[in-house]
Amino acid sequence: MDGYHFSTEVLVRFAETDAQGIAHHASFVVWLEVARVAYLAEHAGGYLAIQAEGIEALTTAVDVRYHRAAYFDERLRIWTRCVDIRGARFRYEYAVVRDLTAGAAELVAEGSTAHATVDSATRRPKRVPASFAEAVARAESPA
Amino acid sequence: MDGYHFSTEVLVRFAETDAQGIAHHASFVVWLEVARVAYLAEHAGGYLAIQAEGIEALTTAVDVRYHRAAYFDERLRIWTRCVDIRGARFRYEYAVVRDLTAGAAELVAEGSTAHATVDSATRRPKRVPASFAEAVARAESPA
Amino acid sequence: MDGYHFSTEVLVRFAETDAQGIAHHASFVVWLEVARVAYLAEHAGGYLAIQAEGIEALTTAVDVRYHRAAYFDERLRIWTRCVDIRGARFRYEYAVVRDLTAGAAELVAEGSTAHATVDSATRRPKRVPASFAEAVARAESPA
Amino acid sequence: MDGYHFSTEVLVRFAETDAQGIAHHASFVVWLEVARVAYLAEHAGGYLAIQAEGIEALTTAVDVRYHRAAYFDERLRIWTRCVDIRGARFRYEYAVVRDLTAGAAELVAEGSTAHATVDSATRRPKRVPASFAEAVARAESPA
Repeated sequence: MDGYHFSTEVLVRFAETDAQGIAHHASFVVWLEVARVAYLAEHAGGYLAIQAEGIEALTTAVDVRYHRAAYFDERLRIWTRCVDIRGARFRYEYAVVRDLTAGAAELVAEGSTAHATVDSATRRPKRVPASFAEAVARAESPA
Repeated sequence: MDGYHFSTEVLVRFAETDAQGIAHHASFVVWLEVARVAYLAEHAGGYLAIQAEGIEALTTAVDVRYHRAAYFDERLRIWTRCVDIRGARFRYEYAVVRDLTAGAAELVAEGSTAHATVDSATRRPKRVPASFAEAVARAESPA
Repeated sequence: MDGYHFSTEVLVRFAETDAQGIAHHASFVVWLEVARVAYLAEHAGGYLAIQAEGIEALTTAVDVRYHRAAYFDERLRIWTRCVDIRGARFRYEYAVVRDLTAGAAELVAEGSTAHATVDSATRRPKRVPASFAEAVARAESPA
Repeated sequence: MDGYHFSTEVLVRFAETDAQGIAHHASFVVWLEVARVAYLAEHAGGYLAIQAEGIEALTTAVDVRYHRAAYFDERLRIWTRCVDIRGARFRYEYAVVRDLTAGAAELVAEGSTAHATVDSATRRPKRVPASFAEAVARAESPA
């Protein structure tokens, strides 16, 4: 996926479907979080490493655009990138795709989330840890 | 409902349905919790009153038997009673029904949950607060 | 709430909270759907009336901006309006607030969702039913 | 795990935690379903193979006993076995464990679910497909 260097997979659970016979739209919001956690585990020591710095990352915005339905027991790939780290804020962008044969992929949904870092105790804004910013810089500009 | 003195209602959400076109079975587990919270609000000052005593109630067991399917946008009544308070443990029993005309009701599911009270800080067992036991005794033996 | 004529309430469920001690951000996406269903029930004969016309409404986009945290057992009001009905598409806008004393309200989150109407059988685009458009026109321009 | 021949893993999602800082008890019910689907994929051609025979499997009962809390970002192993296939009914049993070092495991929860097979169209009871019963017999009595 152009512009993305990291992806993770989810398998659509039956509990995530709805009476329209497709994955419920709120399930995607959970999957984007699963993808962020996987990104952090791969690149930045995991979410626990952020918490170990006395920081919590809150979600301040989410948007998803749904292009195609997803179905039970289907494997989806979530391309994920972290962008725009500034002060106590950062964003993620996502492309949810189904992998087709021969390397082709079909776009199922796109989304973005915005986050604010706060002090775990006071819940007041606290800058994104330098270690996280550096890990993201490396992750998004691979050699 | 024989033997029950309290009930609350839920309206089946679309997000709670699944691709079989019915309410997903895990949704019922959430509804039982909604019913417990409503019971506490009615009879015992709410869950926050329990937390104010430095206590958390953990769920140690849940069982549900599903008799009929439930559907999107359907209103269900959850009959709820608290039983067997002993030391740091108590149980709830439930009957989920759909109200029919003329006071009749159709049994949709039955269930029970078991709970343990622990100290909020240490997570070690701590007796059920006397105020809770008294409130339940009043609720379950109305004049 | 300026510009809104309809609202519904949700009570934050314990299952909807997360380990940050607040309502999980995906819960809001479910609540917006609850609000849409309540809006339809109030103004347009309910979602079942739309399905009775052989139509399903798919969600094609969702965005939420979170301004304040919401907490377990807290009652939130969701102001809801339907806008921009055109052909086989329509949108909803939302303001999630906590009601304070003396009529004041605190903005917890804002959001919007976009929808497409399709033929239930073929899943091909099918115009929004006239009855729905008329019901919305009445709902959004009360005398 | 004694008596079990199949296991699958789940990673606790943040959305699956609650304000007690632990995985919400309803999340386990979803995980048991994830485990059943994985078992079917491994042994019986997947749930889609059952649907291809014109059959749906409904959940008629679930019970879970929680022994220890589970936490965000923790990997759990779900041991799963299918038992008691008779006519149009079958059951599953589960042990949810955290794997410790040196092959040891800690029991987090145990559970069982009961299921009924019905005709997809009529929703009337229909015997468990022979192919499924045979696949389970092979799975549960490995050479």
